[in-house]
Amino acid sequence: MPLLVVGSVALDSVETPCETRENVLGGSAVFFSYAASYFSAVRLVGVVGDDWPHQHTQLLQKQGIDTTGLQMVPGAKTFRWRGKYQPNMNDRETLEIHLNVFETFDPVLPPEYRKCKYLFLANGSPITQMKVLDQMPEAALKVADTMDLWINLQRDELGQMLRRIDGLVLNDSEAKLLTGDENLVRAGHKVREMGPKFVVIKKGEHGAMFFSKDETYVMPAFPTARVVDPTGAGDSFAGGMMGYLAEKGNATPQTLKEALAYGIIVASFNVEDFSLDRMKQIKRADLEERMKQYRQMLSF
Amino acid sequence: MPLLVVGSVALDSVETPCETRENVLGGSAVFFSYAASYFSAVRLVGVVGDDWPHQHTQLLQKQGIDTTGLQMVPGAKTFRWRGKYQPNMNDRETLEIHLNVFETFDPVLPPEYRKCKYLFLANGSPITQMKVLDQMPEAALKVADTMDLWINLQRDELGQMLRRIDGLVLNDSEAKLLTGDENLVRAGHKVREMGPKFVVIKKGEHGAMFFSKDETYVMPAFPTARVVDPTGAGDSFAGGMMGYLAEKGNATPQTLKEALAYGIIVASFNVEDFSLDRMKQIKRADLEERMKQYRQMLSF
Repeated sequence: MPLLVVGSVALDSVETPCETRENVLGGSAVFFSYAASYFSAVRLVGVVGDDWPHQHTQLLQKQGIDTTGLQMVPGAKTFRWRGKYQPNMNDRETLEIHLNVFETFDPVLPPEYRKCKYLFLANGSPITQMKVLDQMPEAALKVADTMDLWINLQRDELGQMLRRIDGLVLNDSEAKLLTGDENLVRAGHKVREMGPKFVVIKKGEHGAMFFSKDETYVMPAFPTARVVDPTGAGDSFAGGMMGYLAEKGNATPQTLKEALAYGIIVASFNVEDFSLDRMKQIKRADLEERMKQYRQMLSF
Repeated sequence: MPLLVVGSVALDSVETPCETRENVLGGSAVFFSYAASYFSAVRLVGVVGDDWPHQHTQLLQKQGIDTTGLQMVPGAKTFRWRGKYQPNMNDRETLEIHLNVFETFDPVLPPEYRKCKYLFLANGSPITQMKVLDQMPEAALKVADTMDLWINLQRDELGQMLRRIDGLVLNDSEAKLLTGDENLVRAGHKVREMGPKFVVIKKGEHGAMFFSKDETYVMPAFPTARVVDPTGAGDSFAGGMMGYLAEKGNATPQTLKEALAYGIIVASFNVEDFSLDRMKQIKRADLEERMKQYRQMLSF
């Protein structure tokens, strides 16, 4: 089933203890789309300026991603982010953020996009996210991401948005910020009580936790010795998860658990190089091979 | 098979955001012994002063732990530790440490103890740990713990000790300190290359990682909403792990993996109250019940 994602499309500058890369392809909707494309048809909605290199669009199209919804605004600049990772490669600092054309992003979905049954609202304000929800009355599974910025600045709107979605994906620090609870098990369920039927807390190198009314579980990250750039790990996790749900065409507890595992596997590849550089090298078979190792790792 | 543990026996004062407890039963060998006692016969070697409440010894004996090796030094004081937990209940600060009688602890093992096949060297200096190894030439499985203090102060002796043991258990921060590597997968294997056949990195609320020549894996912690006092979690993890290995009488890859899981389960109970208060309430059947849930959690 086709999967629609609405989110940021960006040019990232990434500083790690080993190396710095300037203006590489990034953005939540980009990482998400590429990850999801291993599993299902993906339609991307986002906005860029006329500084956007056309080869980035071509890369996404080559992967089968429908970029009809990627709007180019003449005279405007693309969203830019600069971040620096600590030696542990898990904590990072945002050095610069220029929303540029993303600041006034007002997504209007092409008519055929509105029929998508699977929807992911990547990084964006809850106000924008709700505008998308307004256009998607027929979506069967609506999942969103959020971040500290919106928890701090638009908590009321975030609260409204949470009552309109099926699932929320957020970081551990964001779950603590949103609930004021330092225990992630309690925090996960408190977020769930704000509206979504399920909540996924991303813990970076420590994996992910899942919460529904009847289930609480944790899945570890796939252990990798090669962590070059964690940027986009959370979005590629969400992309793998949602792509798999769209492929299966259901969101039963069993499928959701498999989907979380696929998200973890995709993210473990994403961190192995800058931008989409590692993802560009892999095929579905590579994901399946690592999934087999992951299943073995968790069997005893 | 009987399991021998040599380590600290202490009176702990624990400050958490909710509550403070003064002079409660603690110490690495105590938490270890109690956890291991669910699985195998345990012999404890440690030292206390004449301020030691006899009921603590009785509690251990009631659980079937052989305390013949618990030496009482008249006129001396028991090892005391005071710590304070941050609101996340994972990070802690040592406020006071009085080694007292533990400072000159020179364990001399009773003759019948020297025949034990399973040995755990809990918290102690590598010099002391090697003195125990000298007395245990017949031990089939020798596993040790270490901590930042010894990595900083007795690195050479620690290096010697590492070449004489089969397995090492240490915290994530200690693995980073010992190897200078921030990536835990690489750090784990670097520690292994220092001598032990296997290494276990404890990650607190994030579970544990295992490293041998042929295996690298991660197991998440059992998610619990009730974290009252994490003191002794690492030692009860090691106790559950070693107790299970001693019960099975082997350390095959399969048994080691099961042992890690049991360690995780025991630790998840230990944190649910101060000192051994939660452990005192549970039986082997409670561990098995939670193990069943843990296996389900990791199956998909």
